[in-house]
Amino acid sequence: MKEKLKKIKLLKRRSKPAGLPPGTLMYVGERKVENVRMIYIDYDEHNFDEKQVSAIEDCFAFKTTPTVTWINIDGLHDVEIIEKIGRQFELHPLVLEDILHTGQRPKLEDFDKYIFIVLTMLYYNSDNQTVETEQVSIVLGSNFVISFQERVGDVFDQLRDRLRNAKGRIRKMGPDYLAYSLLDAVVDSYFSILEKMGERIEVLEEELVTEPTEQTLQQIHRLKREMIILRKSVWPLREVISGLQRTESALIAESTSVYLRDVYDHTIQIIDTIESFRDMVSGMVDLYLSSLSNKMNSVMKVLTIIATIFIPLTFIAGIYGMNFNSEKSPFNMPELNWYWGYPVALLAMTIVAAIMLVYFRKKKWL
Amino acid sequence: MKEKLKKIKLLKRRSKPAGLPPGTLMYVGERKVENVRMIYIDYDEHNFDEKQVSAIEDCFAFKTTPTVTWINIDGLHDVEIIEKIGRQFELHPLVLEDILHTGQRPKLEDFDKYIFIVLTMLYYNSDNQTVETEQVSIVLGSNFVISFQERVGDVFDQLRDRLRNAKGRIRKMGPDYLAYSLLDAVVDSYFSILEKMGERIEVLEEELVTEPTEQTLQQIHRLKREMIILRKSVWPLREVISGLQRTESALIAESTSVYLRDVYDHTIQIIDTIESFRDMVSGMVDLYLSSLSNKMNSVMKVLTIIATIFIPLTFIAGIYGMNFNSEKSPFNMPELNWYWGYPVALLAMTIVAAIMLVYFRKKKWL
Amino acid sequence: MKEKLKKIKLLKRRSKPAGLPPGTLMYVGERKVENVRMIYIDYDEHNFDEKQVSAIEDCFAFKTTPTVTWINIDGLHDVEIIEKIGRQFELHPLVLEDILHTGQRPKLEDFDKYIFIVLTMLYYNSDNQTVETEQVSIVLGSNFVISFQERVGDVFDQLRDRLRNAKGRIRKMGPDYLAYSLLDAVVDSYFSILEKMGERIEVLEEELVTEPTEQTLQQIHRLKREMIILRKSVWPLREVISGLQRTESALIAESTSVYLRDVYDHTIQIIDTIESFRDMVSGMVDLYLSSLSNKMNSVMKVLTIIATIFIPLTFIAGIYGMNFNSEKSPFNMPELNWYWGYPVALLAMTIVAAIMLVYFRKKKWL
Amino acid sequence: MKEKLKKIKLLKRRSKPAGLPPGTLMYVGERKVENVRMIYIDYDEHNFDEKQVSAIEDCFAFKTTPTVTWINIDGLHDVEIIEKIGRQFELHPLVLEDILHTGQRPKLEDFDKYIFIVLTMLYYNSDNQTVETEQVSIVLGSNFVISFQERVGDVFDQLRDRLRNAKGRIRKMGPDYLAYSLLDAVVDSYFSILEKMGERIEVLEEELVTEPTEQTLQQIHRLKREMIILRKSVWPLREVISGLQRTESALIAESTSVYLRDVYDHTIQIIDTIESFRDMVSGMVDLYLSSLSNKMNSVMKVLTIIATIFIPLTFIAGIYGMNFNSEKSPFNMPELNWYWGYPVALLAMTIVAAIMLVYFRKKKWL
Amino acid sequence: MKEKLKKIKLLKRRSKPAGLPPGTLMYVGERKVENVRMIYIDYDEHNFDEKQVSAIEDCFAFKTTPTVTWINIDGLHDVEIIEKIGRQFELHPLVLEDILHTGQRPKLEDFDKYIFIVLTMLYYNSDNQTVETEQVSIVLGSNFVISFQERVGDVFDQLRDRLRNAKGRIRKMGPDYLAYSLLDAVVDSYFSILEKMGERIEVLEEELVTEPTEQTLQQIHRLKREMIILRKSVWPLREVISGLQRTESALIAESTSVYLRDVYDHTIQIIDTIESFRDMVSGMVDLYLSSLSNKMNSVMKVLTIIATIFIPLTFIAGIYGMNFNSEKSPFNMPELNWYWGYPVALLAMTIVAAIMLVYFRKKKWL
Repeated sequence: MKEKLKKIKLLKRRSKPAGLPPGTLMYVGERKVENVRMIYIDYDEHNFDEKQVSAIEDCFAFKTTPTVTWINIDGLHDVEIIEKIGRQFELHPLVLEDILHTGQRPKLEDFDKYIFIVLTMLYYNSDNQTVETEQVSIVLGSNFVISFQERVGDVFDQLRDRLRNAKGRIRKMGPDYLAYSLLDAVVDSYFSILEKMGERIEVLEEELVTEPTEQTLQQIHRLKREMIILRKSVWPLREVISGLQRTESALIAESTSVYLRDVYDHTIQIIDTIESFRDMVSGMVDLYLSSLSNKMNSVMKVLTIIATIFIPLTFIAGIYGMNFNSEKSPFNMPELNWYWGYPVALLAMTIVAAIMLVYFRKKKWL
Repeated sequence: MKEKLKKIKLLKRRSKPAGLPPGTLMYVGERKVENVRMIYIDYDEHNFDEKQVSAIEDCFAFKTTPTVTWINIDGLHDVEIIEKIGRQFELHPLVLEDILHTGQRPKLEDFDKYIFIVLTMLYYNSDNQTVETEQVSIVLGSNFVISFQERVGDVFDQLRDRLRNAKGRIRKMGPDYLAYSLLDAVVDSYFSILEKMGERIEVLEEELVTEPTEQTLQQIHRLKREMIILRKSVWPLREVISGLQRTESALIAESTSVYLRDVYDHTIQIIDTIESFRDMVSGMVDLYLSSLSNKMNSVMKVLTIIATIFIPLTFIAGIYGMNFNSEKSPFNMPELNWYWGYPVALLAMTIVAAIMLVYFRKKKWL
Repeated sequence: MKEKLKKIKLLKRRSKPAGLPPGTLMYVGERKVENVRMIYIDYDEHNFDEKQVSAIEDCFAFKTTPTVTWINIDGLHDVEIIEKIGRQFELHPLVLEDILHTGQRPKLEDFDKYIFIVLTMLYYNSDNQTVETEQVSIVLGSNFVISFQERVGDVFDQLRDRLRNAKGRIRKMGPDYLAYSLLDAVVDSYFSILEKMGERIEVLEEELVTEPTEQTLQQIHRLKREMIILRKSVWPLREVISGLQRTESALIAESTSVYLRDVYDHTIQIIDTIESFRDMVSGMVDLYLSSLSNKMNSVMKVLTIIATIFIPLTFIAGIYGMNFNSEKSPFNMPELNWYWGYPVALLAMTIVAAIMLVYFRKKKWL
Repeated sequence: MKEKLKKIKLLKRRSKPAGLPPGTLMYVGERKVENVRMIYIDYDEHNFDEKQVSAIEDCFAFKTTPTVTWINIDGLHDVEIIEKIGRQFELHPLVLEDILHTGQRPKLEDFDKYIFIVLTMLYYNSDNQTVETEQVSIVLGSNFVISFQERVGDVFDQLRDRLRNAKGRIRKMGPDYLAYSLLDAVVDSYFSILEKMGERIEVLEEELVTEPTEQTLQQIHRLKREMIILRKSVWPLREVISGLQRTESALIAESTSVYLRDVYDHTIQIIDTIESFRDMVSGMVDLYLSSLSNKMNSVMKVLTIIATIFIPLTFIAGIYGMNFNSEKSPFNMPELNWYWGYPVALLAMTIVAAIMLVYFRKKKWL
Repeated sequence: MKEKLKKIKLLKRRSKPAGLPPGTLMYVGERKVENVRMIYIDYDEHNFDEKQVSAIEDCFAFKTTPTVTWINIDGLHDVEIIEKIGRQFELHPLVLEDILHTGQRPKLEDFDKYIFIVLTMLYYNSDNQTVETEQVSIVLGSNFVISFQERVGDVFDQLRDRLRNAKGRIRKMGPDYLAYSLLDAVVDSYFSILEKMGERIEVLEEELVTEPTEQTLQQIHRLKREMIILRKSVWPLREVISGLQRTESALIAESTSVYLRDVYDHTIQIIDTIESFRDMVSGMVDLYLSSLSNKMNSVMKVLTIIATIFIPLTFIAGIYGMNFNSEKSPFNMPELNWYWGYPVALLAMTIVAAIMLVYFRKKKWL
């Protein structure tokens, strides 16, 4: 069941029937939370305010305050909330559509007054050992950041702590630095996914060398699938971040650019690692197939050794099991009446077996 | 028969003998409708007029009206109609040729007075589980859009409803937005093809793990074929849409460009998904081949186990089936006359069999 | 023998010993015609003159007439003729060398006074089912086109008819349109080669599913070879045509450029189709190899079923063929003297066989 | 255990929990040295001073002297030292982070006052025949070079000798030439890794032809892994060096650029060689798999020859081992009572065997 | 031994220990000639002088003469000679290093006063059927060309003849044309290598179809190796020649550029052909592997036919070889005493065999 869910992830279903007008607001994912959770964090260098609100209107006042405000929405099924935000912060209908149509490709769109960023957050679900994806949409304005997530729970807890405790330089910086920090947290979380994958690759390599089973290949196949998902998230992310670096938007301060370069480097490193993993995994398929062939070879050798030793012996035994009537003719199986007949027959069999064994030894089958 | 039809799709036949002058008007496909169906939809923000006409001349008046007019032609075998349209709307002979020579690569051509777009519409034919293609040619003028299709039936019904019911912003926008909406409907329909493919991939993966048959690989092969067709339609589409975005033609309003970016993103997402599907399908071929090897291995093991157990036993039985005359010599098979001869022989056989079984257990064949 | 010829085609031999001075005139191909055939076609909108000449000098007068002249040379072994043309029309020695050294890569060279184009013409030789290549060299001057072919017979007959009958717009246009028409005819002929290949692919796919033999793979291999040849001709052609489109040479009129775009689109379509064919053919190799494995599997199963059923039975029969002396001991094969001995033995064998059959049924081998 | 270590190398673990503020200083590798070793070399054309210091502050004076100073730090676990250097030489916090977070991708960052370079140094560990990696970070300032290494021991000893002995032009040149020399030494060391790999490829090819075992493929697989690591180090290095060449930084003198071109050429040569190695190694997998098939074939042939010769013979022997009662009927096995019965039976067997042998000879199995 | 030599070629050993100062002059190859052979050819349109000198100083006078001088050095082990040339012609130390460190990647370096070119010359050694490489370094100055080769013997003999006999335009042209001629001769020699390879491919294809052996695959593997070497030489050559074409150096006359375009075209043609060969060779591996499978299949079929026919027959014979005592019970093998017992048994066996044969015929195994 869960496995099923994971498989569908490669292409998020756009339930919207083809042909609907663009900008139609309808959430296409499954409802992943009971209630939409709305939390705002409002801060500057000296003040900090964090609160969960029950009505989105409670956040609207921050639009004009000079402090930096981060509004985080967990849960997208309540389209009305999204619409209200859209009206208040003057977002383009297509932006709202993209927020709701989860499963988007990571992208960056620069509307003069705000920048819209779509990211994919990845979780490693240790229950069924699969990678799960969640779309995070970020709107960066002149003094606010709004982030939209499909469910509660994310990779931003450390970031919230830093905001609360005024650690690092984050409280002194503007909303662009906050948006960068969100990006950085998402990219950092990819590293832990990669580490998990790296460990599974090691385990599989170990298995391949010692005891490859049919499951091994299926696990390699699953690994490949997950790499495909990861790649689909990370490759476009590279463009997103390099787009942010190169943007001439006034929303991104010059001083933030060195940090964006840093997260860009991390993205490249992740891409490099994925490509290396792909190379390694494709090598593992070769290893597996050749291990199958080796196994077959060893099965065949055992059969061949047993059969080629005993088939001639059984033939000799068969000869002397024939009932030719030795009373009718001196040529009819006189061996049967010889004094040393039986011992000689056994000796002959032993010699034949020995010859075969020497032959196999020469062929290095033994 | 239908299967046959599908196979030819990869290269639409240009029946025109090589060397004919360019611009020769001749429909190269098969006649797919009885009569050409011509429908115009004429609208502005406040008025709406839709009518099926029997003579193409009935649509010519709209060339000069300020309203937006969408003329849709289903069926291309009547070359005369195409020629009349060409004369009335001053289309280049090569444009008319491209409309008739279906099987074109999607493309965009910017003639100052109009823009010519060729698209491929894809249907999933659930009868024979194949993807069928149809060329849609669109001419976008200053106040009209003419679309040409090979047969009746398309993915534009929702769009027509929106026009009729004045849903969305479409009735307030110009012909460029109408052309964009046609593009968007075609691209949206690709998503449903992809979903169908995704489902088939899942079914095949399930089959591969549980019960791979010769049909499985042939289905994978068919899937590959269809992806090749899909790819051939979508890759050039990317250039078409990015060409529309970058065009400096006065026919495309600035405000339409954000919508084109949206449909461009969808195209990229489709391409990404096709590439991911290709990766997965090629992994499935590996899975299949290794499952064949595994099957062979298990067949071989059964044979080897049975043969290596019974061949030595049969040999022993053969030994004591020999007819050496024990009356002639005390060495001739004295075992046959021993008191415990038979039980000992049976015991020996049991021991040989047991050794073999232990060996197989050690080799993990059992 | 013919097969041999075809195989050498991948690399046309440059018989010229390495190190000869560039511009040395020597025909490197085999002599394919008895006599060089020289035909000129001289025309403008109102006049038309076509004549086969025996001396090349008869064509030289056209160099200065205002009419368009097409001089076509079939056969390259008479180097003197080529040299005379070179002197008269002031061609660069390297151009003459390229005309004679057939097997060139398609290319475009823009010498101010003329444009030099090398193309590859492809024929499907239905005798031995191979694709044959021939180099066509075209020199486009301000009022003349000279084309050089290795042998009599080409794909330009329809074009000549159009010139004779003043069909299409060709008689009203300049030599650049004539050169375009030659290009277009060559590209059109590629489509028919592709159709032939498409048909062969279908036949092979049919064969693969029903009755794959060793010949099937060899035919796939030959198909691959021919695609390699086709690719080598078409890929550089793309650059040639796009070079013609982008050239600033006064020899190409503005009005011809839309036609060049058309032929360029066709070239891209051919390249797309070749790439699709390649993808499909490589999938067919997988199908073939797995069909081999499947065959082997079914052979093995038959052997295993027969052997594993009869080997134990034969063993039982062997047991009761032993000659232990039942008179010496009550334990020596008392079964042989039982009243129901033989029927029980037969029953035991039947039960063993039935167990095996049930096992195979469970394993789905039957 | 060591093997394990090597395997983790593909993705250096970023132990920093995701979400930490950027610029947090924490060494993520394992502690590879007991104490941090700090050595400075201070020189100009005429003077030379080399000293190991116990406190990093002893090197700080050189910041303002006109001589060139190379400060080399072996060991990164003492974060305080790195922080002090950062403060004294005014390095950006992200630079310090990159120095400590070993496992970075090679990169070049140009901060106006200094240039920051990250390299990967590779060692061939002959104990366990693996390639080990170590990050070298270089900070190039106007009159100093600071290099950071994870452990004691590097490829710079020859360079130090040249500095001590004033060999070459190095003592006359500035810190940019020193940084180039470090780069050059690292790149040179790659050649020796490549040589080692080349030798192993040769050995493996030899093995493949003469005596391929299961180990052979595993070694090929390990070779592939190491090439992946090498590639990950060298590809980005190319960008680093070409970045240095193209930089407009005042820190790189014009005269150094020809040397950078030289080291760039070497990098390209290394990349070429790695790609060639990859091609060769992938060909070796084919060779290995086909050698497996060949082996299987030869095993099968032996089995088939033995079985097909003796099975019919055993059948004939079986016939004459039947106990049909010849006294009850003249048709019941009269052969058994013939005078020449037995010799004729043996002859028949010999003939059958001979026919089989002739058949195998014709099939070229013998 | 020779085979060994060839294998090392993929990576020429840089014996220079890592870390040596750049510009250190030391020849890294093996000494391939006894004595260095130095020959100069000095010419203009009217005069020609060719002489082998014993001291390099004898050539130094030509540095200032207006004639074109070609100094050719065969043998690089005498570093002193190279140093003297370097001093006299003012070559950069890195140029001298590149001349001596053979195994360089082909490259072009433009020092204002001279252009430095490194090429790879390839020989087909027919003794051991391998391709051998030799580095040719060319220095092109304003009135001289100096070429350095590792051993006596090259592809320039025809060129020398043309110089001696004043054939072609070479004696009228400057040193740039001479350098071009050297390039052209090297590129031409690649064609003959390709022809050799083409012939070997044909032979191998023939072998694959008729009689593939284990050697066949090893030869395919060797062919692949040589293509890798060839590719490593030719790909960078493309950049070298296109660099020469695009250079703004005063050393390359405008008129030479059309010749460079010609040699560039040849290089592209060679690259195309290598790529086609690679495609074909990789197809041959498929053919080989499937021919192995086919062989195995046919071996298995023979075994299966023989075994499945005779195993049941032997079982029947075994039945009637049992010794159930028919005197004790009427059910104990009454058949043995039947009048038609034996003939009926033989008939039964014949029928079983016939059924089997029909089955195999149906399965198309016979």
